[in-house]
Amino acid sequence: MTKPQHTVIFQPSGRRGKVEDGATILEASRKLGGSIESVCGGKGTCGKCKVKIEQGRFHKYGINSSIDSVEAIAAHNEEFLTPKQLRDGYRLACQTHIHGDVVIFVPEESRKAQQVVRKEATARDIKLKPAVKKYYVEMPPATLHDSLGDSERLQAALASAHKMEGLKVDYTVLTTLPGVVRQEDWKATVSVWKGREIIGVAAGKKERGYGLAVDIGTTTVAGYLCDLGSGEVLATDAMMNPQVSYGEDVMSRIGYAVKGKNGLKQLQRAIIKGLNEIARRAAAKAGLRRTDIVDMAVVGNTCMHHIFLGIDPRNLGRAPFTPAVHHSVDVKARDLGLKVAPGAYVHVLPIEAGFVGADNVGVLIAEEPYNQDEMVLIIDIGTNGELIMGNRNKLLSSSCATGPAFEGAEIRHGMRASPGAIEKIKIDPKTKEVEFKVIGNDAWNTGTKAIGARGICGSGIFDAAAQMFLAGIIDKGGRFNTGIKSDRLHNDGDEPEFVIARAAETAIGQDIVVCQKDIRAIQLAKGAMYSGARIMMNKLGIAKIDRVILAGAFGSYIDKMSAAVIGLFPDCDPARVVAVGNAAGDGARMALLNTDKRAEADKRAREVAYVELTIEPDFNKAFTQALNFPHQTDEFPHLKGILPEQK
Amino acid sequence: MTKPQHTVIFQPSGRRGKVEDGATILEASRKLGGSIESVCGGKGTCGKCKVKIEQGRFHKYGINSSIDSVEAIAAHNEEFLTPKQLRDGYRLACQTHIHGDVVIFVPEESRKAQQVVRKEATARDIKLKPAVKKYYVEMPPATLHDSLGDSERLQAALASAHKMEGLKVDYTVLTTLPGVVRQEDWKATVSVWKGREIIGVAAGKKERGYGLAVDIGTTTVAGYLCDLGSGEVLATDAMMNPQVSYGEDVMSRIGYAVKGKNGLKQLQRAIIKGLNEIARRAAAKAGLRRTDIVDMAVVGNTCMHHIFLGIDPRNLGRAPFTPAVHHSVDVKARDLGLKVAPGAYVHVLPIEAGFVGADNVGVLIAEEPYNQDEMVLIIDIGTNGELIMGNRNKLLSSSCATGPAFEGAEIRHGMRASPGAIEKIKIDPKTKEVEFKVIGNDAWNTGTKAIGARGICGSGIFDAAAQMFLAGIIDKGGRFNTGIKSDRLHNDGDEPEFVIARAAETAIGQDIVVCQKDIRAIQLAKGAMYSGARIMMNKLGIAKIDRVILAGAFGSYIDKMSAAVIGLFPDCDPARVVAVGNAAGDGARMALLNTDKRAEADKRAREVAYVELTIEPDFNKAFTQALNFPHQTDEFPHLKGILPEQK
Repeated sequence: MTKPQHTVIFQPSGRRGKVEDGATILEASRKLGGSIESVCGGKGTCGKCKVKIEQGRFHKYGINSSIDSVEAIAAHNEEFLTPKQLRDGYRLACQTHIHGDVVIFVPEESRKAQQVVRKEATARDIKLKPAVKKYYVEMPPATLHDSLGDSERLQAALASAHKMEGLKVDYTVLTTLPGVVRQEDWKATVSVWKGREIIGVAAGKKERGYGLAVDIGTTTVAGYLCDLGSGEVLATDAMMNPQVSYGEDVMSRIGYAVKGKNGLKQLQRAIIKGLNEIARRAAAKAGLRRTDIVDMAVVGNTCMHHIFLGIDPRNLGRAPFTPAVHHSVDVKARDLGLKVAPGAYVHVLPIEAGFVGADNVGVLIAEEPYNQDEMVLIIDIGTNGELIMGNRNKLLSSSCATGPAFEGAEIRHGMRASPGAIEKIKIDPKTKEVEFKVIGNDAWNTGTKAIGARGICGSGIFDAAAQMFLAGIIDKGGRFNTGIKSDRLHNDGDEPEFVIARAAETAIGQDIVVCQKDIRAIQLAKGAMYSGARIMMNKLGIAKIDRVILAGAFGSYIDKMSAAVIGLFPDCDPARVVAVGNAAGDGARMALLNTDKRAEADKRAREVAYVELTIEPDFNKAFTQALNFPHQTDEFPHLKGILPEQK
Repeated sequence: MTKPQHTVIFQPSGRRGKVEDGATILEASRKLGGSIESVCGGKGTCGKCKVKIEQGRFHKYGINSSIDSVEAIAAHNEEFLTPKQLRDGYRLACQTHIHGDVVIFVPEESRKAQQVVRKEATARDIKLKPAVKKYYVEMPPATLHDSLGDSERLQAALASAHKMEGLKVDYTVLTTLPGVVRQEDWKATVSVWKGREIIGVAAGKKERGYGLAVDIGTTTVAGYLCDLGSGEVLATDAMMNPQVSYGEDVMSRIGYAVKGKNGLKQLQRAIIKGLNEIARRAAAKAGLRRTDIVDMAVVGNTCMHHIFLGIDPRNLGRAPFTPAVHHSVDVKARDLGLKVAPGAYVHVLPIEAGFVGADNVGVLIAEEPYNQDEMVLIIDIGTNGELIMGNRNKLLSSSCATGPAFEGAEIRHGMRASPGAIEKIKIDPKTKEVEFKVIGNDAWNTGTKAIGARGICGSGIFDAAAQMFLAGIIDKGGRFNTGIKSDRLHNDGDEPEFVIARAAETAIGQDIVVCQKDIRAIQLAKGAMYSGARIMMNKLGIAKIDRVILAGAFGSYIDKMSAAVIGLFPDCDPARVVAVGNAAGDGARMALLNTDKRAEADKRAREVAYVELTIEPDFNKAFTQALNFPHQTDEFPHLKGILPEQK
């Protein structure tokens, strides 16, 4: 028996359609394009997917919608919704099942915003040694007296003109070869992969080759279309990772992948479809077709890596966190459904450890700490935090669960870096007055004018914590100083909160605040990073770090002083704290353009010693101490005069 | 604007459905399963697809069917249909377009019969050295202190237990590896291809491996499921090549492949679907699943080879008849859509020349003439005829267009070897009375009882020609001796004809005859074969052949004496004319089971010198002389006393 179907209409978007009885509102939204935010992936733990069940008869739609059309799971709804909201028909979309026709209003703050993608390619000097090279050949035409096969004829020409022998031929080449060699009078250009396999043949002389480097982030996916002959980046394209609908962080994705029969396939299809779109758009920008792309290099964290390759990721999420494969993988693009040149390979960079993925290897080969004398700390702040520390003598890596606080999740008014997000904050230490800047608006706010703030993104949260600490609104331990005189400080609720943007300045009609719980979330996140670095310093037996490299797009947008003040990393000369942008993507680009970098990646990824922080004996103590701003006991000579005097 | 749709009903099958305005009846039959015979592939040249347009209102179907519902192309219809048949509503299905609702009756003789597939595996002693071998390994479990990737862990175990290092890993293996290695406590069996690539992993100890050898004939496809460890044939399965609907012979298939945008894809999909079905059925017979098949070896003529691989075959059909590739091809089964083990390869045997394909290479490595001292002639009679001649010193091959006469096409009452076909014929030299045997009926007919004859298949045609020649009904030149007294000899029509089966003995209600045109077609076919052999003897400078090997299923069913009498090949001791069955399929099986045979095939295929008969200066003369029964001038000492004395 098939289940009954119900009509669902989302407002204000007007998206409508039918869903099966029992589907959640979030599932309906995914199916029909309702664009409901879902940070936790539908587990009922983030509270970001509040929607309102519109009640009454909707003549416009012919629907008699009522709160009885849905059945909500009490526990999670009551945790995130007030009794009044519940009475008014608000529910969590992921915890509410549809049992009748229904009209659903998605409030502004629950709508999924198009994230601002900040993953430009950094200018880097890359030596060229691409995997795919092109060779022009002229063949003697086939005759009745010389009717050697087209493939053998081509290979003979390659041998005589370019001294290349014994090449494998990708079967897709054979399928079109007869037409191609005859099209321009037995003249053709051959694409050869790693000097050993013919992966493509084009009629006539077409010696320029193109490749696509890809960085698959948990949240953002970026592609860099490069000329393999010059190394030039011809076009960049990026999008939100389409898997975001299935869960915001790595653990939610793993959860989704192992759920049901097709979870993994759905996630894989989503990213492949996204990459095909990136390839199409990037190629179009450069005046090319997608099939002109003859090589690809891909980085991503271990979970993105596994899902991209269609590998069951469940073991990445449970001890001992073993990946399916450590080494780099070369796979035919077509095997994954990628619609570039039919014979093209995708090179997927190696993995360091269960939580230190190919993205970190990208950072590694881009920054080359193994060629440095200085003691370097590389921090890659993504949805997951990764650390590399050391120099040419020894390198350690580790990974820490920062939680999603830096991405705006688990923060009362947290949001992703999309238009309307407060990204920069200054607090006057005396007046406690606040200035802030919103994405999509170049001006700082200078009063109470409405500049459309909707929430606070990661870099704004860094600033908020640092500025509140420097202004004495919170103390070293993160506690609110409730004695402060400011109408921005609210003490009357369950917990103290500080108003960053007043209701009138916002697009959501209510104060945007930072509360005690938000500060605790930031402490946990930064404490995890700091203690990781501290434990690695102990392991290396070093007392100081010469240079801090902030990798990842996020690292380019946070205020370095805010990061230092809250104690994201141990003491370092602020002049030697540098942001290098999307180094993971740069590493992918280097691997695309230079096979020596691929070999280097495989070699170096195995040399880096992974430190599993959670099993280190001093982990708990180090973590507890690191929860303080900037640290309970460590000295910060470079912040002297900046940090408030401790009593 | 979409075209109007018409309802079409086929009788007596009752298959019905809608087709677009303008579709031919043959196209409608292919779409709806009307099972109309189509030997020429829809070109209007074989006349086998006669159907009757039923006229009048068909209340049963709610259709007002009339001859006006169709529009026939006059030329071809008038060639094959009498004025009375035309008046009665008979038309050629391929030359008649549908423009209204219509009921179509398919007469018995136009129905596609399920061919009797005669491709059993021959018992042969095959040395075992399969490409895929299985290795059992036990791994130390992953722990927090040893979290090496599953793939590297597996490889380490292979290296320590079996000394196998540096193996490539097929990416499909990675997708399931994490689950597989943990399923039976870190014990697994690894399938390794050619000692260099891991193509599959199964949990626990599963050391038996299975492979499928396939012979893709133009008309018949056969698969042999083998145990790779013992060589045993566990199951055989065969079917008509599903491409037959698109054209009976190689040239029609090429024509279809290059026609329109999707011709080649349609043909490829048809054979792949067929092979998947063969794999499924064969596996089921052996109590296995299709995915237990870890290796495949395939033979087929050049056209079947190209279409199977999705290669544009157009150049095979025009001078200089160059194939896309001569060498063997190893391609992932999944790339072709074959649903065996996901990591499995298909080994496609090499090609000798434009018309001498991988099937002939299969014959070559099965019969090994290159290891013989005797002068051998190997005749492979399929839809196309192929010859190999020589011994260990030198080998020649050639190909001749026998035309489809041996398959029953272009013969008035010719048909494929399916139930109802007359397969054996004896004619009393004195009375000119005929005895015959029909497929599906073990008894010879001994009078005029109805035993359901529908036509004559290839072996019956051989017998008819030989017996008519020996009985003096036709002379050495193939002319009918019209002076003979027999009511079986009809002289009153356009051309003389001889009745093999009287109307009462048939299922089609009319005499089954052999006419002058039929004899001419046989002469052309056998003349092509004979002259090919004659030219090759001249090239080798030899006067006699020591042994004739009849390869191909067809060769096993023809009467050797009939073949000798009509002059299919030059004189040879009848005791040394042997039929070896489907040697091409045997060759595929050998290549499946022994990689040395694959290497041998690649080497020997290049050594055989192809003779392009049509450009030989003595071709015309040799051909003309060979049209005679058995030959105009050659001596046949071994047929002395059997052949009629020539005046």
